[in-house]
Amino acid sequence: MGECVNLRMRKKPNLDIRLERCAEIMPEAPSELRGKWKENFGFDKICLEIGCGKGRFITETAKKDADTLFIGIEKEPGALVMAAEKVMEQKIPNVLFISADASLLSEIFEDGEVTGIYLNFSDPWPRKKQAKRRLTHGDFLALYDKALCDEGFIFFKTDNSKLFEFSLNSMLEYGLRLRNITFDLAGSGLDNVVTEYEERFMEQGMNIYRVEAYKV
Amino acid sequence: MGECVNLRMRKKPNLDIRLERCAEIMPEAPSELRGKWKENFGFDKICLEIGCGKGRFITETAKKDADTLFIGIEKEPGALVMAAEKVMEQKIPNVLFISADASLLSEIFEDGEVTGIYLNFSDPWPRKKQAKRRLTHGDFLALYDKALCDEGFIFFKTDNSKLFEFSLNSMLEYGLRLRNITFDLAGSGLDNVVTEYEERFMEQGMNIYRVEAYKV
Repeated sequence: MGECVNLRMRKKPNLDIRLERCAEIMPEAPSELRGKWKENFGFDKICLEIGCGKGRFITETAKKDADTLFIGIEKEPGALVMAAEKVMEQKIPNVLFISADASLLSEIFEDGEVTGIYLNFSDPWPRKKQAKRRLTHGDFLALYDKALCDEGFIFFKTDNSKLFEFSLNSMLEYGLRLRNITFDLAGSGLDNVVTEYEERFMEQGMNIYRVEAYKV
Repeated sequence: MGECVNLRMRKKPNLDIRLERCAEIMPEAPSELRGKWKENFGFDKICLEIGCGKGRFITETAKKDADTLFIGIEKEPGALVMAAEKVMEQKIPNVLFISADASLLSEIFEDGEVTGIYLNFSDPWPRKKQAKRRLTHGDFLALYDKALCDEGFIFFKTDNSKLFEFSLNSMLEYGLRLRNITFDLAGSGLDNVVTEYEERFMEQGMNIYRVEAYKV
C-alpha cells in the first residue's frame, strides 16, 4: 500500500485472537506447501497479490474467478487480519493468506507454480537509495519471473507517477513484455477491481496508472 | 508540432522568395536521392526529424554531431522556411530540409538508409478516429521500421500525456524495444535539446514525456 497517513493502520485490539479465528485460510508453514499448492487445495491455477492490504481487491477478484486459487501476501498483520476476516465472513472458497515478505517468494512457491501476480499501490519508496525495496525493482522481478509459469503475468497499478515510470523501465530492462499501459485507469474502459486505497484516490480525481507485464 | 493556437504560423510574406534563397539545402526532387543520400552528401549516417517545425531542435542537434546528416521533414511551408533560414544563417553544413508528408518516407529513403528518427511534439490528433494520423500510429512505425537500419532508433517526446500513452502502446505492439521512458524530461537528467514549443511548455512548469524506441 502507498504511504498515506490517513490510511495507516491503528493498533488492532486482540490481533492474535482475530488471526487465530482465520487460521484455516492462513497456512502456518507455507514453505511446506511449496510445489503442492494446487494439488493440496484442488485448483489448476494460482494467482498472488503481493501487498494485499485490507483485501478488497483479492476478495472481489477471487469471486470473479472461482477456478483460481488466490493467495494474498501481506506483512502488516493489522491489514492482513482485516483481509482474512473479509474472506471468512463471505465464505469465499478460493482465497488464502500468507504473512510474509515478498523476498521469501521462492521459499514458498516452486518455479513456474504461479500464473499471475498482482501488485496494487505498492509502497513507492521514493528515495533513490530505497529503490531496491520497490516491488518492481529488478531483484523482485527476478523472483516473480522464477515463480511464474510460461506466459505468466504481473499486473501492476499505482497512483504514483514516479513509481510507475520506474516500474516501466525496470520491467522493460528485465525483458518483460508490456501491454495496455494506461495513465488513467478510470477513463480507460479496462475492467478494474478497485482497492480501498484506490477508491480514496479516485474520489480526489487523481489518475491511476496501470500496466500488464508478461513473462516472455 | 502540437496544436496550440499561440504557436500557429501567420501567413509569411514573400514565402516563395525566401524558400528560393534556401534552395541549396532543400533538395527539389528528394525521391531521386533515394538510396544515395550518404554518398551524395558525403556522410556515413542520416537522422531525420519528422515535423521539424521552426528548426531549433534540428539545428542544435546537428551542431553537436557534425558527422551525421540531419534531414528535417516538414509539411508546413511557413515553419519550414524559418528552419531553413536558421541553417543558412548559421552556415550549418549537415542539415537539409524536405517539404513532404511523413507518409512519403519510403519514396524518399531506401530500406535501412536511416539511423535515427526524432519525433518532437507531434500533433496529438486527440479524436479517436484521427488515431491513424498520429505519427506514432502503427502504420507510421512500419514506415520508420523500413527506413531504419538495424539498431536504428526513434526518439519521441511530447507534452501530451494521452499521445504518450498511445505511443508507448503502439510502439510496444509494433515490437519496438523501449528504453528510458521518462515522465519528466527536465527532471530526468537526460541530455535534452529543447524545441521552441517545448520551451514555452517548460516555462509553464508542464511535464515533458520522452521515450527511446529501438528497432529489434
